[in-house]
Amino acid sequence: MLSKNQIKLIKSLSQKKSRQQNGLFIVEGIKGISEFLKSDYNLKHLYTTESIFEASIDLISEISEVELKKISALKNPNTALAIFEIPIEIPSQDNGLIVALDDVRDPGNLGTIIRLCDWYGIKDLVCSLNTVDCYNSKVVQATMGSLTRVNVQYVDLEDYLESRKTEVFGTLLAGENIYTTTLPNEGVIILGNEANGISEAIKEKVNRKITIPQFGTVKETESLNVANATAILLSEFRRRTIEK
Amino acid sequence: MLSKNQIKLIKSLSQKKSRQQNGLFIVEGIKGISEFLKSDYNLKHLYTTESIFEASIDLISEISEVELKKISALKNPNTALAIFEIPIEIPSQDNGLIVALDDVRDPGNLGTIIRLCDWYGIKDLVCSLNTVDCYNSKVVQATMGSLTRVNVQYVDLEDYLESRKTEVFGTLLAGENIYTTTLPNEGVIILGNEANGISEAIKEKVNRKITIPQFGTVKETESLNVANATAILLSEFRRRTIEK
Repeated sequence: MLSKNQIKLIKSLSQKKSRQQNGLFIVEGIKGISEFLKSDYNLKHLYTTESIFEASIDLISEISEVELKKISALKNPNTALAIFEIPIEIPSQDNGLIVALDDVRDPGNLGTIIRLCDWYGIKDLVCSLNTVDCYNSKVVQATMGSLTRVNVQYVDLEDYLESRKTEVFGTLLAGENIYTTTLPNEGVIILGNEANGISEAIKEKVNRKITIPQFGTVKETESLNVANATAILLSEFRRRTIEK
Repeated sequence: MLSKNQIKLIKSLSQKKSRQQNGLFIVEGIKGISEFLKSDYNLKHLYTTESIFEASIDLISEISEVELKKISALKNPNTALAIFEIPIEIPSQDNGLIVALDDVRDPGNLGTIIRLCDWYGIKDLVCSLNTVDCYNSKVVQATMGSLTRVNVQYVDLEDYLESRKTEVFGTLLAGENIYTTTLPNEGVIILGNEANGISEAIKEKVNRKITIPQFGTVKETESLNVANATAILLSEFRRRTIEK
């Protein structure tokens, strides 16, 4: 049986404020929960309709389908809902390639960008303070477990870039063609807001302007979705490590 | 003033069946409508709160914000809603690179894939009959006008691939590494369903298995979003045309 207080806490975690106050976030579904259980994340509590998870028995409550439906944010809840602890952010140790997001707002975009970082072996994803929270349940859902393998930090992006000694890449108009220019094994790649791109303040920190060229007829008004741009850039940076 | 019949027709166009029966679809917002007005698509009627569009006066109705809200599918309608005619599908004439989708279901994914085709100069996008309808309003919205420049066809994909004389590429496990293998200027690239990938019947038509390699720690369970995989593949195929 779920208590009123448990339901209240779980529901409240859809709000960023409550996640931050409680230091907790929600993962739904078998695949996502299994990935987090295998990781360094600490489980706070697991609510499940089936006893299929490997976790301390004290932390598991078996609940009914009706109860799960009550606490789930999904239209079709998938077997279980878990509460995990938000880890304390560890400053980046990596001197390799880092992805930085300037005001990315869409949870689906952040989620798939985290998956891309995981795929291309990017350990650190640095987000501006106005970028959507990576513990938002839609983001967690979209990462498909990749969040457990990518270190996401929220920082004052201007200060952060100021402190970096490496090259700072930004996709801007009339930059170097990514297919023909040199691309190193380290540096920061900045991706900007869905509607407005990279903000003026952050543009000033870019010291390598790069461009993904269009093919066929050049369309003035056309742009790429930010997650697709990330996919193309990471593919291009990483393929260079094979050529060498 | 909007008549009851007009409202009924517009509302019905959210259904694929009605779109097919009437041969009509909806475009919302200034940018999208402007792109379609510039294209070969025929305008059926335009409902707008501001007289900012260049179209035959007979085809424009000025309406109130309240009326727009009534017919729009968007939470925040953007100035106008237009009805365009669905063009008659013209069989592909192109002998270059073609993208084929096998059972892609998410409207956002199809929309961004159409944008990617536009960016990378792919003229023909071929969809299996169970792929989401490209005149679905969410797809139209997500294409940001790119639908006017990409020829989308719905076909029996097995038959279609059977008839092609070119190479047929499919992203499958243990295929050729896309970064090191040869990639031609023509052929069909197949992308599969979000959850299940390429179906068994279509796999049999693939004669070049290709793989986007992971970097860093290899993750067994990890996969890429279908639109991101399309982005990476098109980038890789097209960059070869620069090198040559």
